[in-house]
Amino acid sequence: MKKMNVGIIGAGRIGRVHAESISYHIPNATIKAVSDVRLDGVKEWAKGLGIEDVYSDYHKILEDKEIDAVLVCSSTDTHAQISIEAAEAGKHIFCEKPIDYDLDRINHVLEVVEKAGVKFQVGFNRRFDHNFDRINKVTKDGVIGEPHIIKITSRDPEPPPIAYVKVSGGIFFDMAIHDFDMARFQAGCEATEVYAIGDSLVDPEIGKAGDVDTAITTIKFENGAMAVIDNSRRAAYGYDQRVEVFGSKGSIEARNDTETNTIIRTADNVASDKPLYFFLERYMGSFVEEMKQFFAAIENDTEPPVKGIDGLNSVIIAMAAKKSLDEGRPVKISEIYAV
Amino acid sequence: MKKMNVGIIGAGRIGRVHAESISYHIPNATIKAVSDVRLDGVKEWAKGLGIEDVYSDYHKILEDKEIDAVLVCSSTDTHAQISIEAAEAGKHIFCEKPIDYDLDRINHVLEVVEKAGVKFQVGFNRRFDHNFDRINKVTKDGVIGEPHIIKITSRDPEPPPIAYVKVSGGIFFDMAIHDFDMARFQAGCEATEVYAIGDSLVDPEIGKAGDVDTAITTIKFENGAMAVIDNSRRAAYGYDQRVEVFGSKGSIEARNDTETNTIIRTADNVASDKPLYFFLERYMGSFVEEMKQFFAAIENDTEPPVKGIDGLNSVIIAMAAKKSLDEGRPVKISEIYAV
Amino acid sequence: MKKMNVGIIGAGRIGRVHAESISYHIPNATIKAVSDVRLDGVKEWAKGLGIEDVYSDYHKILEDKEIDAVLVCSSTDTHAQISIEAAEAGKHIFCEKPIDYDLDRINHVLEVVEKAGVKFQVGFNRRFDHNFDRINKVTKDGVIGEPHIIKITSRDPEPPPIAYVKVSGGIFFDMAIHDFDMARFQAGCEATEVYAIGDSLVDPEIGKAGDVDTAITTIKFENGAMAVIDNSRRAAYGYDQRVEVFGSKGSIEARNDTETNTIIRTADNVASDKPLYFFLERYMGSFVEEMKQFFAAIENDTEPPVKGIDGLNSVIIAMAAKKSLDEGRPVKISEIYAV
Amino acid sequence: MKKMNVGIIGAGRIGRVHAESISYHIPNATIKAVSDVRLDGVKEWAKGLGIEDVYSDYHKILEDKEIDAVLVCSSTDTHAQISIEAAEAGKHIFCEKPIDYDLDRINHVLEVVEKAGVKFQVGFNRRFDHNFDRINKVTKDGVIGEPHIIKITSRDPEPPPIAYVKVSGGIFFDMAIHDFDMARFQAGCEATEVYAIGDSLVDPEIGKAGDVDTAITTIKFENGAMAVIDNSRRAAYGYDQRVEVFGSKGSIEARNDTETNTIIRTADNVASDKPLYFFLERYMGSFVEEMKQFFAAIENDTEPPVKGIDGLNSVIIAMAAKKSLDEGRPVKISEIYAV
Repeated sequence: MKKMNVGIIGAGRIGRVHAESISYHIPNATIKAVSDVRLDGVKEWAKGLGIEDVYSDYHKILEDKEIDAVLVCSSTDTHAQISIEAAEAGKHIFCEKPIDYDLDRINHVLEVVEKAGVKFQVGFNRRFDHNFDRINKVTKDGVIGEPHIIKITSRDPEPPPIAYVKVSGGIFFDMAIHDFDMARFQAGCEATEVYAIGDSLVDPEIGKAGDVDTAITTIKFENGAMAVIDNSRRAAYGYDQRVEVFGSKGSIEARNDTETNTIIRTADNVASDKPLYFFLERYMGSFVEEMKQFFAAIENDTEPPVKGIDGLNSVIIAMAAKKSLDEGRPVKISEIYAV
Repeated sequence: MKKMNVGIIGAGRIGRVHAESISYHIPNATIKAVSDVRLDGVKEWAKGLGIEDVYSDYHKILEDKEIDAVLVCSSTDTHAQISIEAAEAGKHIFCEKPIDYDLDRINHVLEVVEKAGVKFQVGFNRRFDHNFDRINKVTKDGVIGEPHIIKITSRDPEPPPIAYVKVSGGIFFDMAIHDFDMARFQAGCEATEVYAIGDSLVDPEIGKAGDVDTAITTIKFENGAMAVIDNSRRAAYGYDQRVEVFGSKGSIEARNDTETNTIIRTADNVASDKPLYFFLERYMGSFVEEMKQFFAAIENDTEPPVKGIDGLNSVIIAMAAKKSLDEGRPVKISEIYAV
Repeated sequence: MKKMNVGIIGAGRIGRVHAESISYHIPNATIKAVSDVRLDGVKEWAKGLGIEDVYSDYHKILEDKEIDAVLVCSSTDTHAQISIEAAEAGKHIFCEKPIDYDLDRINHVLEVVEKAGVKFQVGFNRRFDHNFDRINKVTKDGVIGEPHIIKITSRDPEPPPIAYVKVSGGIFFDMAIHDFDMARFQAGCEATEVYAIGDSLVDPEIGKAGDVDTAITTIKFENGAMAVIDNSRRAAYGYDQRVEVFGSKGSIEARNDTETNTIIRTADNVASDKPLYFFLERYMGSFVEEMKQFFAAIENDTEPPVKGIDGLNSVIIAMAAKKSLDEGRPVKISEIYAV
Repeated sequence: MKKMNVGIIGAGRIGRVHAESISYHIPNATIKAVSDVRLDGVKEWAKGLGIEDVYSDYHKILEDKEIDAVLVCSSTDTHAQISIEAAEAGKHIFCEKPIDYDLDRINHVLEVVEKAGVKFQVGFNRRFDHNFDRINKVTKDGVIGEPHIIKITSRDPEPPPIAYVKVSGGIFFDMAIHDFDMARFQAGCEATEVYAIGDSLVDPEIGKAGDVDTAITTIKFENGAMAVIDNSRRAAYGYDQRVEVFGSKGSIEARNDTETNTIIRTADNVASDKPLYFFLERYMGSFVEEMKQFFAAIENDTEPPVKGIDGLNSVIIAMAAKKSLDEGRPVKISEIYAV
């Protein structure tokens, strides 16, 4: 088996996470090149991982005939353009979420990718989390029967800077989009209608920036299942990430992961650990697993586990949620996007 | 201290539960009389508890000058009328929920009660549950800060007979009404808007009878808190009754009660008990406690812990939920009832 | 069915607990009389429960032909004598543990009881605890196979007064004796050898009084099972009462009971309730259940669930444990008592 | 900072685990050479990790002047000899447990190591487990006060082959020795007396081979703390590894790690995951951490976290346990080894 050569476009936090996953856990892939618009620190970091080429221009990666696959980890506004060029260059693509915020552009990416016949996987890493993957498998195995209710608790430990809130598209696009994909993943079909309520209860500045920091979104699915997601930008006790699927024969629920399984009994109370602090701690295993499955899909020429349509449809739900919040009414998916 | 004399109107299941609570746990109250429209079996049961008088006509109880307080445990359609007559007879009243399904009639009851100056407590027993009472106290103590999100899981082990579904008013009136009161209890203020989705996923016959068996209701409250309630008529594993209140400083969550705290480890899995089967098992302690607090309110001449307004406002939320489901849109409380 | 008449000898804390269990939970038994050497407060208390006769001399109870059964709840040193007299008077007997600290006297009691043909049940209430009873049933059903290891954690919230320690016989007789019976109950056979280590780590005054406050006792059983019990006179977090039985096919473990099933998540930790404070809170259900089964044994003329031999053999283990601690070596049961 | 060069002596299961920990997690260490008496498969494996030199004779490693540290992962009977030679060659040493089964030989190793002034760390990896390390830190921080009782549950999922049992030294030497070190680790001082009971309840063949498969060992420590360890060669539900330390102000307990934190509720029960299957799954994190701390001790010229004395004293406890079991009496540490 020939080793696959990989190029990483964007060496920020998430690009580096993927690079380390590949270096330490994917024996049949080698990171040949990395590019970033800002090179300070990147060269040193790349050297430590034994990466040969470091570029400021990602086109150098696309031009390298020896490179089989690229990871698009650059800023969101460049995902679509780079993905299109990469597909045209015949590279397999792992694209961080979201693909874009414009449905036409996303569709254009998907068309180009399809025509090029390359693999295209979207970075919804939580599907690969040990807990949520187990829920999906148990549900698919029929253990809990037909899914009726999907409940997702998704709360961050701290709100992002206000500057970020202003440009991110807001809570539904930068945070809940993971939960929308999770709801689709567990429902096993597509959403039909969305209703969202929300408010700025954590920090009024977030409200002034045009966003909410606390939201509850209900989603109806094609198979009759209903999902409810509650989001908060700040859980005082850390990163709260729980999912429950309730069905005709039972339910399966994932509780939070913790650093240890110890409990301390004192005169005060019986105390256990808080949840793992944030996504790098909580979801590290899932980042590794999504890389494994991406390269396995290339090697075995199978469908990648998270496809372009997943990137598209989660953005559509986010749009419906935003519209619902703005207009104070349930919004049909068909209002956002007519198939 | 003089012992209080009590009359119980309606000796069905819930009337008997209250009678036993009083007999075994309220030393300063004596059940002097019981009435029921069907006397078969009642006399024998009453004798076992040492109850002196057994009537088929509740007016006999109201006419008994020695009786200080009555429990209205008859069929729902008689609650309002009996409560009015009891108030006019100067009796303190414990009235099972719902008071009525007609807002004008409920208001009339409350007016008569107020004029009569008698205590009037409504049977929202779950407020007295050890778990939910703890949540309320911890929240009131400020431990979790301002409440932002209230999550209620409320699933029955088995659907009621279709015949019952047809006359009960449906899932929002006969089942979720407890959860609506719980949301109000934990929010500490009144609802402003309600949105409900639902479907008959458990049994299509329920759908044919004009009801849903699975529902998700979101409620906005005056203080900005948001509640979400998920209901199912059938949880394969039993009675699922959980509440979480999430606030600015943390969260408090009540898990299910079980018969034992044992865990069994075998080659199959690590298994613990299912939740207590249904409301008589799960909420027995709360039934006792609500009686204790009712009689304490009489004795100390203090406000009863669940008042007429609680009976009224929970019905209003149920009406809003039903209207929301029917019309597919959020419904403002002010649409149902203008203060 | 004729109601059974009961006399209670000794109206201290445990006598009153049993009286209330009978009054509220045993419909076919009536407490006709109570006796206590100190009558202050007893009359008032007895009146509240509707008990007819109050005596300072227990012989009055034994002479009452209408009384079917007595509860011996007096001080330990009187258990044997009263039980003998009660048996000779033809009364069924519920005797609080321990029967006595002298093996010959215990044996004499058992002989008299057998000759009289009356029921004789010993007050090892923990066998009736919902958790430990479940362990026993699951084990008997073969779910965990043959029992190999029995682990008992038994820690009090506070040490007793030093004055009590001096006369109680020490930790093995006044505290661990319950655990010795529990080990026998779960093993399903008799002990053959005992080894105990201990020290006064909680309070040196306990050591000066000739006792230890922290002990670990290992017991070998006839069927090859091994038990280990750890005792402490003071767990800072309350009453710690756990049992695990590990067998060839798995294990079953009982965790502590708590007042609520709530968990509080804050910036500090994830906290749940401490164990129920002490035996009256923790074992109230078991006290009721042991009364139910005592009166059921009388009514159905069946063997009582805890017999005289249980009272005898637990004292024998306590003696072996004490001897082992004193002599620093394992002690065979046959050294204490030759069958 | 100069990279350290490492030689691994013995490329069996545990040697490879350490090699991977170093390759993936210790950036400032490079595995330069590996040796094994059987080279089949080793070369290919070494190539995959980029290891330069592969030898059948470990002396080649000791002769390599560029190598700073060696890992002694060969068969137990060679640990002492290789450690001595490595120390004399000026290499820092990580030696798998046990150092040897002969106390004089162990002492000789420790003397040579001390004279050579090299680091010497023993492979008690469980000290680095996230749960047990937390217990140690919480205890050292005084959160639970003075330790009184240490309870260790240590049960394997399957017994080893009978052939292994015959040569391993038995349950105290090949299995419980980890628990003896854990008890020392948590007690923070040395043992003074040991008592063990045991039997072959899992498999009579183990008994015929001269060993027991089920054992309970109690240990007294210098500071008054008492430890109790229960061992079984077969827990039907997998690898059961729990530790509790109970002290004057509370207790801390580590429960088992599991693959996921999901719970499944069905008509049967509420089920969670079994413990992680065996030591490679359960303790993988600890293997990485012990390597990190070994190389940190070299780099910072500090004391290694597990020293020669730890290797020595755990063997001494194992000898005392074996003698206690054989002679049916408690055995003082001073009987085994006079300081």
